[in-house]
Amino acid sequence: MKLIESIKEFGGYLNRYAHYSVACHCPMTFSVYLPPQAAHGSVPALYWLSGLTCTDDNFRVKAGAQRYAAEQGIALIIPDTSPRGEGVPDVPERYDLGQGAGFYVNAIRSPWDEYFRMYDYVVEELPHLVEMNLPLLPGVKSISGHSMGGHGALIAALKNPGAYRSVSAFSPICHPLKGEWGKGCFTAYLGGNTAQWAAYDATCLVQSGASMPEILIDQGTADEFLAAGQLLPEAFQAACLQAEQPLSLRMQEGYDHSYHFIATFIGEHIAWHARALG
Amino acid sequence: MKLIESIKEFGGYLNRYAHYSVACHCPMTFSVYLPPQAAHGSVPALYWLSGLTCTDDNFRVKAGAQRYAAEQGIALIIPDTSPRGEGVPDVPERYDLGQGAGFYVNAIRSPWDEYFRMYDYVVEELPHLVEMNLPLLPGVKSISGHSMGGHGALIAALKNPGAYRSVSAFSPICHPLKGEWGKGCFTAYLGGNTAQWAAYDATCLVQSGASMPEILIDQGTADEFLAAGQLLPEAFQAACLQAEQPLSLRMQEGYDHSYHFIATFIGEHIAWHARALG
Repeated sequence: MKLIESIKEFGGYLNRYAHYSVACHCPMTFSVYLPPQAAHGSVPALYWLSGLTCTDDNFRVKAGAQRYAAEQGIALIIPDTSPRGEGVPDVPERYDLGQGAGFYVNAIRSPWDEYFRMYDYVVEELPHLVEMNLPLLPGVKSISGHSMGGHGALIAALKNPGAYRSVSAFSPICHPLKGEWGKGCFTAYLGGNTAQWAAYDATCLVQSGASMPEILIDQGTADEFLAAGQLLPEAFQAACLQAEQPLSLRMQEGYDHSYHFIATFIGEHIAWHARALG
Repeated sequence: MKLIESIKEFGGYLNRYAHYSVACHCPMTFSVYLPPQAAHGSVPALYWLSGLTCTDDNFRVKAGAQRYAAEQGIALIIPDTSPRGEGVPDVPERYDLGQGAGFYVNAIRSPWDEYFRMYDYVVEELPHLVEMNLPLLPGVKSISGHSMGGHGALIAALKNPGAYRSVSAFSPICHPLKGEWGKGCFTAYLGGNTAQWAAYDATCLVQSGASMPEILIDQGTADEFLAAGQLLPEAFQAACLQAEQPLSLRMQEGYDHSYHFIATFIGEHIAWHARALG
C-alpha cells in the first residue's frame, strides 16, 4: 500500500492509501485516521462503511469523527464503497447499482463477480493489509457505517462471531431483501435465488441464529428513506426481540438521513465502541 | 428572506435562506445554524466568512463547528463569498477572481461595481436582515473566517469599532496589498490606486490606528499558501507589535490550509468568542 496523502488533524494524521486489491481485482483507495496515540504505540481500530454514492472522502470530511477518535485513541479505517475505474462494470445512469454501490457482498453473477467482492475486501483483505502496515492492535477492531454501510457493518459483525468487539449503525438498510435498493443490487450481484440473499441480510442472519453483544442503531424519524421502506429497522428489531439479540434502537426525533445526523451522534458511537475496544 | 432548507443537527437547526440582496443587486443564499437555545430565546451570533472558491456550504459541512455552537448557545451566520448567477460578472477560468472571490470589498470599477459589494453585504445588510428575522440578540456578534474570509473578518472588525465583540481568523490573508491573490482582486475591483486598497488591508488598518480587543489567529506551518507569500501573518504581527494591538498569533506545527486544520481548532475559537459574547 502506498501513502498518497497525509493531513494533520487533531494532533494525528488523516492519511489516504492506494493499493491493488486481490479481492476486487483492481486498484483501491482508502483513508485512515491515525490518532495522536498511534505515534507512541498500537491502537484499536474502528472500521467505517459508507453508503450509496460515497467514496472514502465523505465520512472523513463530513462526519466530524476525527475529533472523537483523537480523544479516544482509536484509528478510523475508511474504505471505498465499491471497486472503481475503467474496466470495472458500472451503470453510470444509476446511483444505486455498480460503482459506489458495492453493497458489501461477494457478487456471483457476471459481469459483477470479477470485481464486486466488497465483503471479502472489508472483512478479510483490508484488515490484514492495515494491521500489517500500520500501528494497529491486531484483531482489536469494531465496525460501524451508514445506510448501505450500516447494512455492511451489521452483516460483517453478525457473520463473523468474535471478529468485531462491537457494531453500530446509522440509518442502516436492515432488511435488504425487502427494500428496493437491496432487491436491485442483490438481483444484479447474486441472482434471482433469494436463498443466496439471506446470507447478506442482517434481519435474516439474526433470524438464523447469528448474534453479537448489544447492537447500537441510531435512526432519524425524519429520514425520507425510512418512510420509503428502504431501511426497515422495525423488521430488524422484531427479529432481535424474537432471538433475544440485545439491541439499542434509538429513534432520533426530527433527524434526517444526512451526514448532519451522523455528526450529531458519531461522538456517542465512538465512545460506545471505545468501551468495547478497551 | 425565504427558508429553503432546514436540517436538524446537534439539537438545533441548520437552515439555508435565499433573499434579494440590495447591496449586491442579485439573489443571494446564506446558511444559519440556530443552536437548541434559540428555541427558547435570543442568542448571540458568530459570523463566518469563507475563503476563495467556497459557498456557504463548505463551512457548514466540513468544519464541525455546529457541535461547539450548540454547546455554547451561539448562532452561526454563514454568507456566500460573492454575488452569483447569470448576469453577474465572472472570469470562469479563474478561481481567484469574480464569483467565489468577492474579497469582502465594495468594488468601484466596472463591471464589478454593480454587484461586488460584499463589504456592505456582510457588515450592514446581512446583520440587519438576520437580526430582524431570527432569534438573535441585536448587535451581539463576533466574526471569524478562513483565508480570504480571515481577511474579511479582520477588516470588518478593524473598520467598525464596537460592532464586533471579538474577531479571530484561520490562515488569513493579512496583507493583501503584498500577496498575489490580493493584488489581483484589488486591481480588478478597486483599480490601480493602491491608496484605495489600504482601506481593505488588515495590516494597513492597524498601521493607521485601527484597533480591537485581542485578535486570535491560527496559522498552520505546513500551509502551502503561507510559503507562497499569500498570507503574510508576519507583516500583520509586526504592525500589531508597532501599534500595541493585542494579538495571539498561534503558529500550529504541521497543519495545512484545509478544513481539517479549521476543524481541529474551531472549538477553541468558538469558546474564545463565547467568552466575548457573554
